[in-house]
Amino acid sequence: MTKIGILGAAGYGGAELIRLLLGHSEVEIVYLGGHTTVGEQIAELYPNLAGKIDMVIGESAVPPVVERGAEVLCSALPHKVGADIVAEALDSGLKVIDFSADFRLKDVAQYEKYYQHHPHPEMLAEAVYGLPELHREEIIPARLVAAPGCFPTGAILALAPAVEAGLIGTDGIIVDSKTGVSGAGRTNLDLAFHFPEINESLKAYKVAEHRHTPEIDQELSLLSGQPLQVTFVPHLIPVTRGILTTAYGRLHEGISESQVRDVYEQFYANEPFVIVMAPGEQPTTKQVSGSNNCHIGLVVAEKTGQLIVTSVVDNLIKGLSGSVLQCLNLMIDCAETTALEAPALWP
Amino acid sequence: MTKIGILGAAGYGGAELIRLLLGHSEVEIVYLGGHTTVGEQIAELYPNLAGKIDMVIGESAVPPVVERGAEVLCSALPHKVGADIVAEALDSGLKVIDFSADFRLKDVAQYEKYYQHHPHPEMLAEAVYGLPELHREEIIPARLVAAPGCFPTGAILALAPAVEAGLIGTDGIIVDSKTGVSGAGRTNLDLAFHFPEINESLKAYKVAEHRHTPEIDQELSLLSGQPLQVTFVPHLIPVTRGILTTAYGRLHEGISESQVRDVYEQFYANEPFVIVMAPGEQPTTKQVSGSNNCHIGLVVAEKTGQLIVTSVVDNLIKGLSGSVLQCLNLMIDCAETTALEAPALWP
Amino acid sequence: MTKIGILGAAGYGGAELIRLLLGHSEVEIVYLGGHTTVGEQIAELYPNLAGKIDMVIGESAVPPVVERGAEVLCSALPHKVGADIVAEALDSGLKVIDFSADFRLKDVAQYEKYYQHHPHPEMLAEAVYGLPELHREEIIPARLVAAPGCFPTGAILALAPAVEAGLIGTDGIIVDSKTGVSGAGRTNLDLAFHFPEINESLKAYKVAEHRHTPEIDQELSLLSGQPLQVTFVPHLIPVTRGILTTAYGRLHEGISESQVRDVYEQFYANEPFVIVMAPGEQPTTKQVSGSNNCHIGLVVAEKTGQLIVTSVVDNLIKGLSGSVLQCLNLMIDCAETTALEAPALWP
Amino acid sequence: MTKIGILGAAGYGGAELIRLLLGHSEVEIVYLGGHTTVGEQIAELYPNLAGKIDMVIGESAVPPVVERGAEVLCSALPHKVGADIVAEALDSGLKVIDFSADFRLKDVAQYEKYYQHHPHPEMLAEAVYGLPELHREEIIPARLVAAPGCFPTGAILALAPAVEAGLIGTDGIIVDSKTGVSGAGRTNLDLAFHFPEINESLKAYKVAEHRHTPEIDQELSLLSGQPLQVTFVPHLIPVTRGILTTAYGRLHEGISESQVRDVYEQFYANEPFVIVMAPGEQPTTKQVSGSNNCHIGLVVAEKTGQLIVTSVVDNLIKGLSGSVLQCLNLMIDCAETTALEAPALWP
Repeated sequence: MTKIGILGAAGYGGAELIRLLLGHSEVEIVYLGGHTTVGEQIAELYPNLAGKIDMVIGESAVPPVVERGAEVLCSALPHKVGADIVAEALDSGLKVIDFSADFRLKDVAQYEKYYQHHPHPEMLAEAVYGLPELHREEIIPARLVAAPGCFPTGAILALAPAVEAGLIGTDGIIVDSKTGVSGAGRTNLDLAFHFPEINESLKAYKVAEHRHTPEIDQELSLLSGQPLQVTFVPHLIPVTRGILTTAYGRLHEGISESQVRDVYEQFYANEPFVIVMAPGEQPTTKQVSGSNNCHIGLVVAEKTGQLIVTSVVDNLIKGLSGSVLQCLNLMIDCAETTALEAPALWP
Repeated sequence: MTKIGILGAAGYGGAELIRLLLGHSEVEIVYLGGHTTVGEQIAELYPNLAGKIDMVIGESAVPPVVERGAEVLCSALPHKVGADIVAEALDSGLKVIDFSADFRLKDVAQYEKYYQHHPHPEMLAEAVYGLPELHREEIIPARLVAAPGCFPTGAILALAPAVEAGLIGTDGIIVDSKTGVSGAGRTNLDLAFHFPEINESLKAYKVAEHRHTPEIDQELSLLSGQPLQVTFVPHLIPVTRGILTTAYGRLHEGISESQVRDVYEQFYANEPFVIVMAPGEQPTTKQVSGSNNCHIGLVVAEKTGQLIVTSVVDNLIKGLSGSVLQCLNLMIDCAETTALEAPALWP
Repeated sequence: MTKIGILGAAGYGGAELIRLLLGHSEVEIVYLGGHTTVGEQIAELYPNLAGKIDMVIGESAVPPVVERGAEVLCSALPHKVGADIVAEALDSGLKVIDFSADFRLKDVAQYEKYYQHHPHPEMLAEAVYGLPELHREEIIPARLVAAPGCFPTGAILALAPAVEAGLIGTDGIIVDSKTGVSGAGRTNLDLAFHFPEINESLKAYKVAEHRHTPEIDQELSLLSGQPLQVTFVPHLIPVTRGILTTAYGRLHEGISESQVRDVYEQFYANEPFVIVMAPGEQPTTKQVSGSNNCHIGLVVAEKTGQLIVTSVVDNLIKGLSGSVLQCLNLMIDCAETTALEAPALWP
Repeated sequence: MTKIGILGAAGYGGAELIRLLLGHSEVEIVYLGGHTTVGEQIAELYPNLAGKIDMVIGESAVPPVVERGAEVLCSALPHKVGADIVAEALDSGLKVIDFSADFRLKDVAQYEKYYQHHPHPEMLAEAVYGLPELHREEIIPARLVAAPGCFPTGAILALAPAVEAGLIGTDGIIVDSKTGVSGAGRTNLDLAFHFPEINESLKAYKVAEHRHTPEIDQELSLLSGQPLQVTFVPHLIPVTRGILTTAYGRLHEGISESQVRDVYEQFYANEPFVIVMAPGEQPTTKQVSGSNNCHIGLVVAEKTGQLIVTSVVDNLIKGLSGSVLQCLNLMIDCAETTALEAPALWP
């Protein structure tokens, strides 16, 4: 039984990790930390947890986590806010999985372009980008894992096989993502997320300037072996969960859809959570909503030479807390799929 | 390990039972039967099940269920359609849980008023109404259990304690229910459920003539000890899952909200899936959506003397397949909550 | 051409009145007042108005309204906040239509029970309750009209004919209302209205204690000729617009559905915006959404003796700004239906 | 007063045209034709029209339209189904606006690739593509106007200025569109549009093979002066109305966002229904929903050299019946904006 603490437990990411761990027989949550919610029962903040967990939220600090015998800290604190705590936790001998953007980018300049001053650039080298499909072997022994952003998860899984195999050109890649509103988090009570304003409405936002872009660039560049920059445009859709990513890349001449399919199927052959759809099939966000799965659809547009890859994930599970748990399972030598096998709800 | 067969497996009820059973270590599905879907993979009909189950749908018939060594048949066939099959299954030595209305009503006249001719009235006496909160002891040894309708589940759980304890008058009880659209099933492609027609729209339907009414009357009359008829009005709401029931009854004079609360808390004290909300709290369908829970809110309107009880259930789980599994667990001597402990998703 | 000013113009009620008036050839908006929005273009706050209106929001005060030659002030300011301004406007010779609850209730004690201290009880006697279907003759010459609440509009229109004609008992009336979220307004950025929290969820709120209750009681008591108290329970539904009200009353013995229908059809015979549905038909909120209509469905539950009346309105039009415009048309001697004839959108 | 007949009146397109024409003082509908709905009141099929129109649907045929003195026929019949009727109507001296794809494409080979055999290729030369922003001068005197598809309207308006001015390369253009479900029509009761299946789900469909593609290619090629093929991917989004199109083109070097903006503002300077958003602003479908407007957002991605244009339309108005009415107004020498000036509803 591995003991863990969760800080930033009252946001959607923290609460989703708690929910998943209720079904995990080898992990015990020993501490929950919050900020404005200190002193409250987590099950009062999240009434779906009523009768399932009896824990009061404490301060978001390292000592109580250590005192309760935890081995791992999961920090769902916002970027910047959690960086010192993450550093302190590592110093205290804890392993850390960080939900925030603080330790995802290797290039501090990229970080500072989107998030301003980095509080702990010295830790970037050690941190592992927590996408098991790309970095499993590094995650297993890691002390510090940075969970990927929700959009990068969908985008990277959609493009990784094609980019690694050099099927598409490295310039002109377009990533057009459509996300449900839970990606905005729980505490951000902006007019933009007020039900009457967003319901029955669609819009693009942060067009070509979203801060998840450098993550996508970093990971795809790594796979490609050469620097690569995508054009990334997120869209806000009035559903609660799910990201559908439509990725476009210029296919090199002479490559058929079935060759592309072979590359994808081989790339994901041993992945427990990634499914490549059959020819002619397109994935829907509903089929992964509530699960840790990523389903991928492949089409080659013969006339225009574009490879069009669609991927779907539940932004709060495979796109967030499910990935965290997948990493945690790897780090504590537990079966990677533990507590992550529930299928999506349908309908 | 208990082996079971599921007929009518391709509807929402059958598929939801399959989904729940994927997490059940003591039940094995050995046969799936359908009708128009014979020969198809269940995981192609329900893409959320991709990679989770590899079974092809066969005919909806008893012999293949018996041949595969099943002990229990779960029939999600429509009312009338399944009655002969249920009879044959019992004759073949199977225990049966029937999702349909065929064996819910003790009074064949009531059945025939709403559903026309009953094909097997001789079986009504043996059948047990499958609401464990009311009939647990009868369910355990039963050969034939009739799973309750989704509306009756919410209505009966809301009113049972008050009716049994005689807190409210037996006439003038109003049950105003609001249901998500999944209650309409998957095969009923009516204009009424075509997305553009129902989205962003609210309506009452089958006002005071819905066929779930006699179930509510039957069970509340049993609890009351005298015949009782409710006014039941269902409403269709453009959400996928969930039933919110608002029940109104005339409270006998001199009874306080806290006395009502005591009665409810005692009635449900040992129930694993029913939670009475704290004073001032109202349940939401979100907090039970994806779970087998029923949460109940209580208010006494001092000025008008009405007791107002609200209950929420996931219409496909506690209102359907979750109840079936709860009964199944009881019938096969398995812990009642097995594979039913997942909390709702939030958000 | 009548000139009017609108204060509180940046809320949903004010903006909806502006939208309706864009199609009105006999009313000119000469002033818009706001609070936190002073200095902003209304068409930037409401991008649907882009290219349709070029007005900057000023302070919410009377002098600029008078200076621009307005004859009527429409105050969409919150209750209490606007009361002094309404008084000042009347003193300045303006006619006033007030969106708030300040002047709806004749009995100051009722007001103070729900809204605390009343700033201008001396004005209650003069104020007219702005529901043309009940008070048309008083509205025409009125100086001060109090627009009804959204729930009372639906509830009173549903019950008025039955109560006036004495078809139902005066006790035991239940009003179960279901509202879209726009009723919460635009500035109330509560977690309860954050998209992910409310989407796909249903709940009752302010059960038997909502402050719209005394309005319903007041108007129905007037019609009945004797004091009457309803049990009123509002429910929040994840749609943008629309209120569906289901009203239950104990029908006196011997009255048939067709007699009830006669009473309703006669009561609303000359009403331009109220339609009584044909026997067996139930109204949907979609069919009035975007219009000033109220559609009403009638059912008599023979077994239980309940009359069940359903009504649907667009909460922002017939339930708010459409009613205001209907009153305005009456007060300025313009055809009552001017700029209010647009049918609902479908789908 | 111009008299018109509408065939295929009972679909969403026909009904939306009827709704718009209720506010038109210079057009009178003299005939409605349907197919399965013959003999029914249009206001019973569309309850939003109750009390607004009293017309029974007749056969979809030309003679009754002529007999009632119509000058124009609006045919909302499906492609192929209406072609003979359109030909007969022209022969009878009627002007025709056709909602279907039959007369949109100049190249019969393109038509037959997507729609099989063309019944009247001889009429293609005369037909005018009914997008007033591109073909106003041809529409005014036309006998036969083919209303554009909903997706092409959004896509062409997004790209026309850039393509005409040669700002972007003609290859590699991506059109990623997101549509509400009303685009599927009313009679297509497919499982894909069954509320529980599509609600809360996102998916791409007909990826790079949607039959609206050749329309986009045709019109953009005309503007470009050279043949051009876009990659077009539509996505189905669980909202009722609205299309958001995100178009990507490789900007020629050295062109700034402000230069692009100048081109767009000049192109649309005199267009009554197209608005180019201010720098930094993105349009939402809500802001045009219920209106005939198209709002356009512009961003240049400096790092990748992509021009990203977003456009929003109401798929049933600017994307369908509003465009038809805009053409009708031009053809009958009525102000182009008549009955099309209503702003969108908000919220």
